[in-house]
Amino acid sequence: MLRPSSQRYSVTRPLYSEDNFEDEHAKVYRKHKSLLDHVKQYFTCTPERAKNAAISLLPIIGWMKIYSVKDWLLNDIVSGISTGLVAVLQGLAFSLLASIPTWYGLYAAFFPVIMYFFLGTSRHISVGSFPVLSLMVGTAVNRLVPDNSTAANITAFEGLSEDEKKILVSASLTFLVGLFQLGMGLLQAGFIVKYLSDTLISGFTTAAAIHILVSQLKFVLGLTVPGFSGPLAIIHTLESVFTQITSTNIHDLVTSIVVMVAVLAVKEINDRFKSKLPVPIPIEVIMTVIACGVSYAFDFGKKHRVDVVGKIPNTIESPIAPNLQIFQMIAVEAFPIAIVGFAVAFAVAKVYSVKHDYILDGNQELIAFGASNIFGGAFKSLVASTALSRSAVQESTGGRTQIAGILSAVIVLVVILGIGFLLEPLPKSVLGAVVIVNLKGMLMQVTSVPYLWKKDRPDCIVWVGTCLAAIFLGLDLGLAVGLGLELLTVVFRAQFPRCSVLANISGTDIYRDRKDYVNIYEPEGVKIFRIPSPIFFANIDFFRDKLKDAVGFNPLRILRKRNKAVKKITKMIKKGELTLTSDGLQATCSMPIEESDDESNMEDLDKPTDYSDLPIQVNWNAELPANIQVPPVYIHSLVLDFSAVSFLDISALKGLQAALKEFIRIDVDVYIVGCDPYIIEKLRDCKFFDDEIKTSIFFLTIHDAMLFIHESHPMNTVSGKVSGSFQYQYMSNELAIQEKEEMKMKVDADIRPETRF
Amino acid sequence: MLRPSSQRYSVTRPLYSEDNFEDEHAKVYRKHKSLLDHVKQYFTCTPERAKNAAISLLPIIGWMKIYSVKDWLLNDIVSGISTGLVAVLQGLAFSLLASIPTWYGLYAAFFPVIMYFFLGTSRHISVGSFPVLSLMVGTAVNRLVPDNSTAANITAFEGLSEDEKKILVSASLTFLVGLFQLGMGLLQAGFIVKYLSDTLISGFTTAAAIHILVSQLKFVLGLTVPGFSGPLAIIHTLESVFTQITSTNIHDLVTSIVVMVAVLAVKEINDRFKSKLPVPIPIEVIMTVIACGVSYAFDFGKKHRVDVVGKIPNTIESPIAPNLQIFQMIAVEAFPIAIVGFAVAFAVAKVYSVKHDYILDGNQELIAFGASNIFGGAFKSLVASTALSRSAVQESTGGRTQIAGILSAVIVLVVILGIGFLLEPLPKSVLGAVVIVNLKGMLMQVTSVPYLWKKDRPDCIVWVGTCLAAIFLGLDLGLAVGLGLELLTVVFRAQFPRCSVLANISGTDIYRDRKDYVNIYEPEGVKIFRIPSPIFFANIDFFRDKLKDAVGFNPLRILRKRNKAVKKITKMIKKGELTLTSDGLQATCSMPIEESDDESNMEDLDKPTDYSDLPIQVNWNAELPANIQVPPVYIHSLVLDFSAVSFLDISALKGLQAALKEFIRIDVDVYIVGCDPYIIEKLRDCKFFDDEIKTSIFFLTIHDAMLFIHESHPMNTVSGKVSGSFQYQYMSNELAIQEKEEMKMKVDADIRPETRF
Repeated sequence: MLRPSSQRYSVTRPLYSEDNFEDEHAKVYRKHKSLLDHVKQYFTCTPERAKNAAISLLPIIGWMKIYSVKDWLLNDIVSGISTGLVAVLQGLAFSLLASIPTWYGLYAAFFPVIMYFFLGTSRHISVGSFPVLSLMVGTAVNRLVPDNSTAANITAFEGLSEDEKKILVSASLTFLVGLFQLGMGLLQAGFIVKYLSDTLISGFTTAAAIHILVSQLKFVLGLTVPGFSGPLAIIHTLESVFTQITSTNIHDLVTSIVVMVAVLAVKEINDRFKSKLPVPIPIEVIMTVIACGVSYAFDFGKKHRVDVVGKIPNTIESPIAPNLQIFQMIAVEAFPIAIVGFAVAFAVAKVYSVKHDYILDGNQELIAFGASNIFGGAFKSLVASTALSRSAVQESTGGRTQIAGILSAVIVLVVILGIGFLLEPLPKSVLGAVVIVNLKGMLMQVTSVPYLWKKDRPDCIVWVGTCLAAIFLGLDLGLAVGLGLELLTVVFRAQFPRCSVLANISGTDIYRDRKDYVNIYEPEGVKIFRIPSPIFFANIDFFRDKLKDAVGFNPLRILRKRNKAVKKITKMIKKGELTLTSDGLQATCSMPIEESDDESNMEDLDKPTDYSDLPIQVNWNAELPANIQVPPVYIHSLVLDFSAVSFLDISALKGLQAALKEFIRIDVDVYIVGCDPYIIEKLRDCKFFDDEIKTSIFFLTIHDAMLFIHESHPMNTVSGKVSGSFQYQYMSNELAIQEKEEMKMKVDADIRPETRF
Repeated sequence: MLRPSSQRYSVTRPLYSEDNFEDEHAKVYRKHKSLLDHVKQYFTCTPERAKNAAISLLPIIGWMKIYSVKDWLLNDIVSGISTGLVAVLQGLAFSLLASIPTWYGLYAAFFPVIMYFFLGTSRHISVGSFPVLSLMVGTAVNRLVPDNSTAANITAFEGLSEDEKKILVSASLTFLVGLFQLGMGLLQAGFIVKYLSDTLISGFTTAAAIHILVSQLKFVLGLTVPGFSGPLAIIHTLESVFTQITSTNIHDLVTSIVVMVAVLAVKEINDRFKSKLPVPIPIEVIMTVIACGVSYAFDFGKKHRVDVVGKIPNTIESPIAPNLQIFQMIAVEAFPIAIVGFAVAFAVAKVYSVKHDYILDGNQELIAFGASNIFGGAFKSLVASTALSRSAVQESTGGRTQIAGILSAVIVLVVILGIGFLLEPLPKSVLGAVVIVNLKGMLMQVTSVPYLWKKDRPDCIVWVGTCLAAIFLGLDLGLAVGLGLELLTVVFRAQFPRCSVLANISGTDIYRDRKDYVNIYEPEGVKIFRIPSPIFFANIDFFRDKLKDAVGFNPLRILRKRNKAVKKITKMIKKGELTLTSDGLQATCSMPIEESDDESNMEDLDKPTDYSDLPIQVNWNAELPANIQVPPVYIHSLVLDFSAVSFLDISALKGLQAALKEFIRIDVDVYIVGCDPYIIEKLRDCKFFDDEIKTSIFFLTIHDAMLFIHESHPMNTVSGKVSGSFQYQYMSNELAIQEKEEMKMKVDADIRPETRF
């Protein structure tokens, strides 16, 4: 490997300000599209576009064309059957989370799948219920139809049983979620999932896992706990569970423990011997079958008061119209469900699309899930998304396309219509135990907290904040809090950055934080201030303060003192108290000057100093006549390094303008370097430039600006107390020094046709 | 003025990667304080610190010491009397907004002022009621004590009259607002006002002005309109006003119109002859006096059913305990009131502190307003902040310190105790008219919308969004929506930046967007990709996509194809279908190779290519044997310009790591240039580097990296179809070319002891 610094290089080029650079280098004229152009383009319809739009709306056309019956069909059939069995089990289990009769969970593994088959772009996800969503549905259902008190005042509830009310709420919710998703899809709003960062999702799902765990305790212990909703619902649920703990049904508890131990153990084996096993052992299905048998044999349901699944009607129920009054009451819950449902499905689908290398279309996915849920909602199904575990089964057993998905739906249909009665004796505690065991992965996410704390505090705060808020305030409010926190972190990261004063690394054109290096050279009379982040409303004042700290004075205060001094000097000259001698202004009488506190024209003091009434130029850093005190300013130039300023907003623009003017008015030249051309363009559009702030302040690099400053401020212009020469080091090798001497001679000889220094 | 580009300069320095730069330049060891250190430092108590803390808690000590009785007292007295008169009028008027009896508004100009006198750091603001806050209080009061229906179920309400209930709510609210402000002050949370940008405040106050206008219509028209609360309250109020429009009290209407016209006209005169008038004409006070007289003379109150101020009790009422039950119900309203009240006061105070050059302490202001409101709340006062108009009177009439404030409070006290009866015949419509006329400035802010739209879309969206949300959803929800929008704009600005591919401006070390310039040179085999914004969860995927677009291929796909090809070649060699000849690998039989779709080991395909089983190096850009197709890659190096990346979060870090590995695994060298040293430090902390991603990828500038790449990839290494020489242009003047030739000779002659190119 080459060692870079064993080599030297040399660059010789003109000194560039942005203006000169523009002049010398011809630019390509590029018309940037206006908003109108984009809108026009978006709505332009050509036959080609229409065809593409049709294909993208029905992705099934795309993958059906390349479907290889020979290679793929067998795989899809195997995968479909395996997934179907898992889907039945999960459908039953997750319906418990939603507080609705179990078979409606099965519907979620059937109706939405059919719609997704035609509209979805993912070939590997298994559409159906997802525990977190089911729980969110459960919260809404419990709020509108509480177990032990009166249901919400909805006309459509009249004459319905409690279960029917719950189903009406759940179905309407599914329908509304579908409407939201479809709407977002049509508005091309798929990008919103970007705002749900991994950290947020991780904290949120951990909280959801805790909610799920708590909600399943009643099934595992065989207790009757009413469903709570609203903030702190989890506390109320736990309270209710623990006050009843003595009435635990020992059959439920033992069954659950046996199931949990068996499933955990076999999952561990599956993991460890992954490579040796042809397919993972389907332990959940096995345990369910065993539990059904045992429960039937010993008549758990009747003899031991174990809560069993019970009768599953062997028909498909007729469709239902969603209820508008319910829509109004659950809109607040439906929106987060729509977002979370899509976000989870999209995240899972993306993993497989990357793995199998096909294109996933976020907006089309929204449309697909929207249509699926509208269709599902009409048939009383639970909200559909995807479960990671079920999709993993579909993909790992060889599923190639949604043919596997539709086959799994057929399996579910067979169970509903044909063999559902076999599941009747299944204890709900077994379902609860299966759900709990599957939370392991979600709960283990908690281990990422110490890592996050060490590596990135703001991310850790988002995780913990989202998780705690979602646990205690409920999942929907928790999501909102998490989103707010997350947006705040972005602002926060940019808000208090480390500003630094730069200086020159001797012998190079490199400028670094002057506090960081030993061999660093800060030219006198110049401050180089680096702004290391975008500038916007929340940090513009911070930067202005830091800038004042860096230069060591408040320019506005100096300007006012100077203006006061000029007024006073003018007045004294008029009165004859000061006369102009060859040494400058001299006081004719030595009377002390009283500080009169005349603030009548405060506004005038902030304007540029008006020297027109003075006979001579005032040197503010020298001693002033008649004991007038104005603090001296020891810098003549200020360089602002804008290379990390990626955007400016209106507040920043106004603040920056004010700050620059304050410096310019006390004769400090301001230079901005490394500024993005788009930002310069924006400044120009917003009338940033005027008589005081000129476009010539922009330079390409710090070094260009520094050399320009060196030229325009030869060492003797630094006046007053600044002593010593203003030396500029820029080359360290011998040749360079030779060149420098040549240059000096050249400068003395002619009128600098081409100065090289 | 010097023309920068008439000069040339030359820099000769070593080629630096970050690693080499570190080695060659000694760094100063700086210990960065940990969180613990900061906490320790914060709680360290020295006598000095204790003294400073005491002084900063009682700012009166500071300014009393420098108080000049001779110069300032007269000013303060004049200012105090003028402000006092305005305060009386505004106190009465704004209490109408809060839906409480008028004299409680006067309390707000008395009690809080006393507390602020001792604790406040602003010397010029006039503490007291503020219309927007009064309206927000009114919303809460109307929610808990609606006019035409039953009040909220609060035990303390028993036996109270409607007005007493309202006062209890208002006083409790003031107390709670004070508690919130005090708490925030003690927690040093004054910085939160930074999040309320000018745009947000402007949109919010415009909406507030519209609310105020609508709420005053009933007084101007002399109607009885119940107070509405909640979203869309403004619509309900307007509906109620227009259904009653026929019952308008003509006396009220005429009085209002006369007052409005007179006030508007005189204000115009005040503005126009600002410089000539010694003090502005106090038209509001004059009109009030006239209206009182007229109303008394014609007995408006009884004869014409005009709603008048009525009896003002000439005592101070006894203090009241705030009610905890009410606290719970109004906490949601109290928090935004606390924030808005402080934000407005701080903004006004800041203007005067800058003008008069003294230090304003945000946290102390929070403490001062907190204490003032707690004190005021105990005495049934309205929430106090400041009104811009009243503060302007206090400052412009010469007020120097809060002595003026305390004198204005004395005037208010005199009115309450002594001459309040004179105000009894004042029609409320006059107060309403005065309030409406004073909204002009706030309503005129609407004119900034077209300007914002042209200059900065996101800011405009924040303005319009905040304004509409505040109008239709109510002020508190509107503020929340505005804040959310504002945070989103920050994220949004950084989320979809314009990425660009850079190229070299011939003859310089400058790199610019290759699409922008005519005379620009993009070296073959290298892509320079500029990331123009911070990288975080919301844009990391965007950047990865843009990067793929820029290089023109998907590195992961190429890696998989290469890995498949290597597997196939290895298999074929083992089977003897390929043999190694001097020309490379040759197929021994010309049978077609079938694409077998073996996806059993998908994960393996994403790992680095394992060449160990191959007898020779594969040239992927050349034609492969046996018709194996792998897309050629025509770049050997990728340079990422990180100079505008001001921060990275954990998601970005993981995404970046994955993206870099994808490129490194297909033998594209990745270089990162211009990266902030703090970011490199963070990457190191977060274990970003490993066997594949090394710290040696960091270079100081694009030019350093490009020259290094040029060295490590001499022209003939670019293999396959890339033809032509890899020429690197770096100097354009004659001397440079000479040097180049010398260098070339040197390179040929010896083993490059110090290559200069």
